Amino acid sequence: MALNKKPYRGCRDFYPENMRIREYLFDQMKNSAHLFGYEPYDGPLLEEVELYKAKSGEELINDQIYSFTDRGERFVAIRPEMTPTLARMVANIHRQESKPIRWYSIPNLMRYEKPQRGRVREHWQFNVDIFGAAEGKGELEILSLIRDFLKSFGADHSMFSIRINDRMIVDHLMNQLLKLDEDSSYKLYKIIDRASKVTTEKLNQMIDEIITDSSAKSILNQYLGLDSFAAIKTFIKENNIPAESFLNIVSGAEELELLNYLEYDPAIVRGLDYYTGLVFEIFDKHPDNKRAIAGGGAYANLLKIFNEEPLGGIGFGLGDVTLKDFLESHGLLGDFSKKNCDLFVVTTEEEHELSVIKLANELRTLGCKTEAQLEKLKFNKIFKLAEQKGFSHVAMIESKDNSPQVQLRDLKTREIQYFSLEQAKDILKAIKG
Amino acid sequence: MALNKKPYRGCRDFYPENMRIREYLFDQMKNSAHLFGYEPYDGPLLEEVELYKAKSGEELINDQIYSFTDRGERFVAIRPEMTPTLARMVANIHRQESKPIRWYSIPNLMRYEKPQRGRVREHWQFNVDIFGAAEGKGELEILSLIRDFLKSFGADHSMFSIRINDRMIVDHLMNQLLKLDEDSSYKLYKIIDRASKVTTEKLNQMIDEIITDSSAKSILNQYLGLDSFAAIKTFIKENNIPAESFLNIVSGAEELELLNYLEYDPAIVRGLDYYTGLVFEIFDKHPDNKRAIAGGGAYANLLKIFNEEPLGGIGFGLGDVTLKDFLESHGLLGDFSKKNCDLFVVTTEEEHELSVIKLANELRTLGCKTEAQLEKLKFNKIFKLAEQKGFSHVAMIESKDNSPQVQLRDLKTREIQYFSLEQAKDILKAIKG
Repeated sequence: MALNKKPYRGCRDFYPENMRIREYLFDQMKNSAHLFGYEPYDGPLLEEVELYKAKSGEELINDQIYSFTDRGERFVAIRPEMTPTLARMVANIHRQESKPIRWYSIPNLMRYEKPQRGRVREHWQFNVDIFGAAEGKGELEILSLIRDFLKSFGADHSMFSIRINDRMIVDHLMNQLLKLDEDSSYKLYKIIDRASKVTTEKLNQMIDEIITDSSAKSILNQYLGLDSFAAIKTFIKENNIPAESFLNIVSGAEELELLNYLEYDPAIVRGLDYYTGLVFEIFDKHPDNKRAIAGGGAYANLLKIFNEEPLGGIGFGLGDVTLKDFLESHGLLGDFSKKNCDLFVVTTEEEHELSVIKLANELRTLGCKTEAQLEKLKFNKIFKLAEQKGFSHVAMIESKDNSPQVQLRDLKTREIQYFSLEQAKDILKAIKG
Repeated sequence: MALNKKPYRGCRDFYPENMRIREYLFDQMKNSAHLFGYEPYDGPLLEEVELYKAKSGEELINDQIYSFTDRGERFVAIRPEMTPTLARMVANIHRQESKPIRWYSIPNLMRYEKPQRGRVREHWQFNVDIFGAAEGKGELEILSLIRDFLKSFGADHSMFSIRINDRMIVDHLMNQLLKLDEDSSYKLYKIIDRASKVTTEKLNQMIDEIITDSSAKSILNQYLGLDSFAAIKTFIKENNIPAESFLNIVSGAEELELLNYLEYDPAIVRGLDYYTGLVFEIFDKHPDNKRAIAGGGAYANLLKIFNEEPLGGIGFGLGDVTLKDFLESHGLLGDFSKKNCDLFVVTTEEEHELSVIKLANELRTLGCKTEAQLEKLKFNKIFKLAEQKGFSHVAMIESKDNSPQVQLRDLKTREIQYFSLEQAKDILKAIKG
């Protein structure tokens, strides 16, 4: 019986071309994080299920995690998200660390998803968080980092926008203006969260089930119609909403020339628990891919599950799949079909096969990425193969007057130079200039 | 009830210092692989248990894997090793790829180990494999790569050796010279594998249980006493062992100046299945850490489980834990306690807090790794904090004649220079020269 050659459902095999793309995405993530002084961390693949329950409640846990009981009777799960691990790690060290704490990670995560476009079971997520920052300033830094990260691929504000809102506004709306109890608030949160995905008719129908009072309904409709920073500013003022921190973030963003990357969106609320201040989602503006690429926000009580004193944080998570889809939609991914290698060393004669390896080894100690052809090749095959593999140069060892010489060819200019086997440094110079 | 703040048993939390070390190890792995023209790949975290059983048999599988049944009734496992995934992926593409295929990966793997020094449940493993190379040449390339990889950390042949043997020799010994049946061969393989870990007395006792014939016993003892390439060469000649490929590898290694990194070791046999030619283990020579850092070898039948035609390969796996222990034993790990950042931007005045972020953002677009202090600091705290964080330069925004200026301090030379807020480029020049 032959075994199945497909990867496990919803997971990906990364052959070299796709792996080069993934490495490129990760390198850009690391670069952006380092430019802002963020430090790398990582945690275990498995955590106790209790930890995920404490952060996200039973629902997500039961539906979406890969959980099992280990041989020591521990009920564990493959991490579906990084935040609980982050919280556990920060809870261990925050008292002795100087603030703000700036951390990032790029873990692989697993969720039991039904595979579809943009959704896989295993993905990687760029997680960036800042803890203990001065009020409003951490938000501005995180928003700057997101903008710079996407700009590093060549994206600009015609391609994406960061839609922001504030949980202080939404909570005030629910509790004070609409006077909803906790249960109705929860339901309305879910409706708002799905507002952009349903028809206006359907939306009104869902709202009718929760809000019957007509003046409340009119306030809600007014809220859902807010479509600019000017409009939300007026709404805040007219309804006496205590949203000074949000207004400060908006004016700071203006001063930092961030505002053309931001949009106000009343439908951004994110999950009911967890977030307590600014919330945001990064949206792809491409007509074929109108989707959130990433999301995040400010949270005050992440360490509560560890009985630790409150420590405010702001962070976001951005998946490798949605990022790649975004970049592809806008034609921002280059050509990754060829491997990154400087030189192809070959011979047509069996007697020089070991010299091929020897010369290649020497070139490598000088930093030259070198592929050695381990077996002699026919002359007319060499250059076809080299071009197919994407090399710019070929070094061919051949016999000349009974001693070996190296013929170096530039495949673009067709220029040919000759060297002895001992001239590795000169060969490198000829290639790299 | 407060939650547990420890990581899952046998797994590691990577706080920034340890994560920087891990990233350094991974970067060296990638560099070495790229220098030899190896391409990156990766596969899913989960594979069906059938795949692992097909490669390694029931025993390893039942004892050591994290397996469970998913919601779709698939019996799956968190990958305990990369080779079965590699085999599956190569089986998919080998027919249309030009040979040799050169691939590497650095996956996280999980085994249900009892945690102890050098053994953890989750680790990362540098996997390097070449398929379809000319006979004996792939071995030489892989051995060169291992040597260069460890040399890239500053290690030399006083610190490690690659102990080699060949399965053709061991198989000939078992079948032809000792005339053992399959079952006894299997037992003897296990005994030889453990030879270095038991006393001579215990070893002889174990051997006595399998071999009773005294001339056979004498041959085995002679074999186990072979301690040099000269000795094994004589043994091969005297016993007519068909080991030409092994002898070619040794003479090739001599020509490539690899031989001072190699030792012949009759006790290196590796697992019974799987390997078919050269086998090797990399040993740490440090008296406190005499251990195998990594192992590998040549295998001919990896694709058999997929009913594919044979494709010979050579490869090795090297774990992050054993590598780190090796480097630490020899003092080859540098200082990773400080973050890698160029500049600390601060102010003592609240009115300049936003300017700190703005200047930092501008410096970042120029490629300067910049940490912004988001809240004003007292003057006498700034430089202490900057030194503690490991910065070489501080840019402090301050009021001068009612307008802001930037005071740039070199913390080593104590030199001070002044700039306007618009001179980000000049500031960068002053730092980087």
